[in-house]
Amino acid sequence: IIECGIPTAAEEHSLWRWTCENNRCTKIRNEPENKEPVLSLEACKMFCDDYGLLWPKPTIETNLGNFLSKINMNTIDIQITKQGKSDDLLTAAADRFKTLVSSSVPKGFSAKAAGKSVTVFLVNDNPYIREFSLDMDESYELYISSTSSDKVNATIRGNSFFGVRHGLETLSQLIVYDDIRNNLLIVRDVTIKDRPVYPYRGILLDTARNFYSIESIKRTIDAMAAVKLNTFHWHITDSQSFPLVLQKRPNLSKLGAYSPTKVYTKQDIRDVVAYGLERGVRVLPEFDAPAHVGEGWQDTGLTVCFKAEPWTKFCVEPPCGQLNPTKEELYDYLEDIYVEMAEAFESTDMFHMGGDEVSERCWNSSEEIQNFMIQNRWNLDKSSFLKLWNYFQKNAQDRAYKAFGKRLPLILWTSTLTDYTHVEKFLDKDEYIIQVWTTGADPQIQGLLQKGYRLIMSNYDALYFDCGFGAWVGSGNNWCSPYIGWQKVYGNSPAVMALSYRDQILGGEVALWSEQSDPATLDGRLWPRAAAFAERMWAEPSTAWQDAEHRMLHVRERLVRMGIQAESLEPEWCYQNQGLCYG
Amino acid sequence: IIECGIPTAAEEHSLWRWTCENNRCTKIRNEPENKEPVLSLEACKMFCDDYGLLWPKPTIETNLGNFLSKINMNTIDIQITKQGKSDDLLTAAADRFKTLVSSSVPKGFSAKAAGKSVTVFLVNDNPYIREFSLDMDESYELYISSTSSDKVNATIRGNSFFGVRHGLETLSQLIVYDDIRNNLLIVRDVTIKDRPVYPYRGILLDTARNFYSIESIKRTIDAMAAVKLNTFHWHITDSQSFPLVLQKRPNLSKLGAYSPTKVYTKQDIRDVVAYGLERGVRVLPEFDAPAHVGEGWQDTGLTVCFKAEPWTKFCVEPPCGQLNPTKEELYDYLEDIYVEMAEAFESTDMFHMGGDEVSERCWNSSEEIQNFMIQNRWNLDKSSFLKLWNYFQKNAQDRAYKAFGKRLPLILWTSTLTDYTHVEKFLDKDEYIIQVWTTGADPQIQGLLQKGYRLIMSNYDALYFDCGFGAWVGSGNNWCSPYIGWQKVYGNSPAVMALSYRDQILGGEVALWSEQSDPATLDGRLWPRAAAFAERMWAEPSTAWQDAEHRMLHVRERLVRMGIQAESLEPEWCYQNQGLCYG
Repeated sequence: IIECGIPTAAEEHSLWRWTCENNRCTKIRNEPENKEPVLSLEACKMFCDDYGLLWPKPTIETNLGNFLSKINMNTIDIQITKQGKSDDLLTAAADRFKTLVSSSVPKGFSAKAAGKSVTVFLVNDNPYIREFSLDMDESYELYISSTSSDKVNATIRGNSFFGVRHGLETLSQLIVYDDIRNNLLIVRDVTIKDRPVYPYRGILLDTARNFYSIESIKRTIDAMAAVKLNTFHWHITDSQSFPLVLQKRPNLSKLGAYSPTKVYTKQDIRDVVAYGLERGVRVLPEFDAPAHVGEGWQDTGLTVCFKAEPWTKFCVEPPCGQLNPTKEELYDYLEDIYVEMAEAFESTDMFHMGGDEVSERCWNSSEEIQNFMIQNRWNLDKSSFLKLWNYFQKNAQDRAYKAFGKRLPLILWTSTLTDYTHVEKFLDKDEYIIQVWTTGADPQIQGLLQKGYRLIMSNYDALYFDCGFGAWVGSGNNWCSPYIGWQKVYGNSPAVMALSYRDQILGGEVALWSEQSDPATLDGRLWPRAAAFAERMWAEPSTAWQDAEHRMLHVRERLVRMGIQAESLEPEWCYQNQGLCYG
Repeated sequence: IIECGIPTAAEEHSLWRWTCENNRCTKIRNEPENKEPVLSLEACKMFCDDYGLLWPKPTIETNLGNFLSKINMNTIDIQITKQGKSDDLLTAAADRFKTLVSSSVPKGFSAKAAGKSVTVFLVNDNPYIREFSLDMDESYELYISSTSSDKVNATIRGNSFFGVRHGLETLSQLIVYDDIRNNLLIVRDVTIKDRPVYPYRGILLDTARNFYSIESIKRTIDAMAAVKLNTFHWHITDSQSFPLVLQKRPNLSKLGAYSPTKVYTKQDIRDVVAYGLERGVRVLPEFDAPAHVGEGWQDTGLTVCFKAEPWTKFCVEPPCGQLNPTKEELYDYLEDIYVEMAEAFESTDMFHMGGDEVSERCWNSSEEIQNFMIQNRWNLDKSSFLKLWNYFQKNAQDRAYKAFGKRLPLILWTSTLTDYTHVEKFLDKDEYIIQVWTTGADPQIQGLLQKGYRLIMSNYDALYFDCGFGAWVGSGNNWCSPYIGWQKVYGNSPAVMALSYRDQILGGEVALWSEQSDPATLDGRLWPRAAAFAERMWAEPSTAWQDAEHRMLHVRERLVRMGIQAESLEPEWCYQNQGLCYG
């Protein structure tokens, strides 16, 4: 049994108490004659696992000591030392921290304003950094100690705002609500040293198949920040709708949005980008092309096969539509789009150019395109259409660099263009990052790694969170059914797929394609499964989901307390009776 | 093209308009030179289907005319004629109606206070009836006509409060929001005659595996009322927890609830019962026995095999636990429970006694039970344990009749006890209704029907809405994976299963077992799938889901506007482009 005294006077007598036995918190009757202090469930769990209730688990050092102290939430004081241009971000992170502490009190309960005062010192060794990059330093160190009988000090040190902010998230997870004493408790003696394994840890949201409110996007970013995810990949347009308002090309959203209210203005996006920055989350834009376009482009004459029927011949879902790469004015059009995206997504350090599911049949249905290819002395075969695609991509790439004013890293989905047997003919490995969406067993992964490409893993068999619901065209279930449980998400290890090329894995990304999702379903689709993913990305643990199960159940409760309608994983009985629910 | 004039002055020019062609609303550009009135999507859909936007579709006669009239929501006046003891219920239903009309305006929009005034006349031919029964009359007739240029009259006539209330739901569905004119419109010339095919149309909610707030239960009842479901089956206790507070047996919830706040008092239940009655929804209690007990019973000495390990030997999920039928005092205990249930669930006309998944191994693990059986000169084989179960059920049945003060219909789940080859030895077909939870292809269904039993269909392959998520003990997916799409729910026809015995089918019930559900997931699990079920139960249509698809997409939007976080079924593009999404 872990030593865990809570130095207080006699408490209200609780019917149940928990005790740590064999690394499990066991629920036992608290006999009336017991006068010793007893542990609530959360307090027990904090010391009955090497990682307490932390999620994701720290990677370098975790020492949680053996004692909890009562704290008074109203006395939390946050001191920000070292002044620099990221101080406003730390101030925002400090405010968020206080909100998180308040939300650790479950609905219907209140915490006594009794206990030690808490001072948090934030030390940012590089206060001038506020830019995202693939090599930004997200590491931090966190120390807690009690200097006197009425005071607890916490110190968080990091090499950037991003690291210090992560430390605050960790600190918030070291404060638990004790429902026996109706008090907040903090772990008293802590040393944590931590940094992520992978630099890119993302969630993709598709806001084109169905529209999402800015409020629901911010809610998602809040939850991401809580589990140290750092990239919100915004798949903002697609064939079905074009909600992005552009000043120079207003018809795209005017004709392409589902309704005049279902749009994102530049100000909306900047608002989300600022919200993300304060939470250490880059907001990464995707403009998917040359396929996945349609609505909005009606009057431009720049698309082919839009709404072609039967759609199954020309695309993977209705409505079909692709850009016509042979049109010179297309690239001016794209440049205008990219310029306004660069302005709106002002903090992004990368640009996603899409590039998935291009249909040669669609292009081949256009006489204009056929003529262009014949003039170029190309055939109308597979490899020639790849040349056409490459022609598009090269032109689009130039315009993207011009629009963003720099040769920023570009991302493309895996496709026939990125096939490892010929990819280097089309895409430079130093310019392009490949996002893998095929299965985790696809030989493309090793093929691309051997050729030196950097990858982001979104293998659909573990990371497509839209899988597993009813079909939306026809009957039966959707294409990648069944539903992916959190256990599979947790076990999806890029290191195992990459073998000796692990350094080329930038990280991974959960994808929520929205054919069957909108703000009403958002939270449940993503959470808590994206938390399982977050620990895999942050820590790349050598252990399996079984070791993480009880921390996982807790992080789910934590998300619910934050206002996220996360999926329920198990009966509460299993949460209260650790180890007794097994398969 | 349907004639559908809206007699108004020039409207703001809309970019898009919809027109009904081949029973589909087609989205087309509204050319600037067009000066004719145009149809919004909802207005088009109201006349482009025989059943407009009604859900569930009426069964006897539906005539929606060809015209819509602008109405002023603030002028709705509801006249209740015929006074009787259900008048308070009609008044409550009238209030709900006004709320529903308000919620038909989507978030972010507002309706002009312009248009005709509306008077609704409610005529209840039996105003003294306010009791649920299996043969209550839920039929109604609804007429709308416009008596002058500034007035619309609606009349609803029914043979009971329940019928008139249904008519109000239908009327609320005949009012749509026109987002071109920012106005509410009502269908002007209507004759509807309607009644349900099946008298029992239910949703089961399990509040024992995880706890649900009263608020979330009421929200569910609100949505049920909107699609004319009439039974909320409350599976209130199970092995994992006992949230039901009983004055005479306080220890059951004191020891058995997940926490002191996760309980239902008698007042809570009466509150739900009253809420249900106003919405035409009976709140039916289940006390599941003799299996599915455990937590709460610790100090009684009345259970066996509680928390027995390995649990897989003694029950279907942890923790195990069954009542010990050999204990005389058990029946006094049960009577006390039943008495307080009868008091709390005051309006119920039936009682569900559970009776599923009894394990002979569990009983056989008790020496006391073995001795009892030997004293009765029974063996310890399958058929003897059925005798023991029957002994329990007979005793429990007597106590239930005593507690409720009448020989009310009793319901049991299908089990080895209800096997059609011997069921009549144990259960009288005039006393017991059997709820079928095996597959829709189970020969038990025909077997039980041939023996004259009345059935409620909850075949798990179509109606268990917890199916299709990750496993909660072990990895992989849960036992009845995959997820059941609304199309399958819609196609699940009791008439097809019953063949010539359809009259013995009382109806059906969707089940939400809550091992992996709680208030955060509730809405998405149930809705809109339970609406698909509701139309099957109300209308038993001869048509398949394809004919219902566009009304289904609309009822989902309607639920969302009511505040229900229903699952999203398709891209909004499919909703706006009827017929272009097909498999």
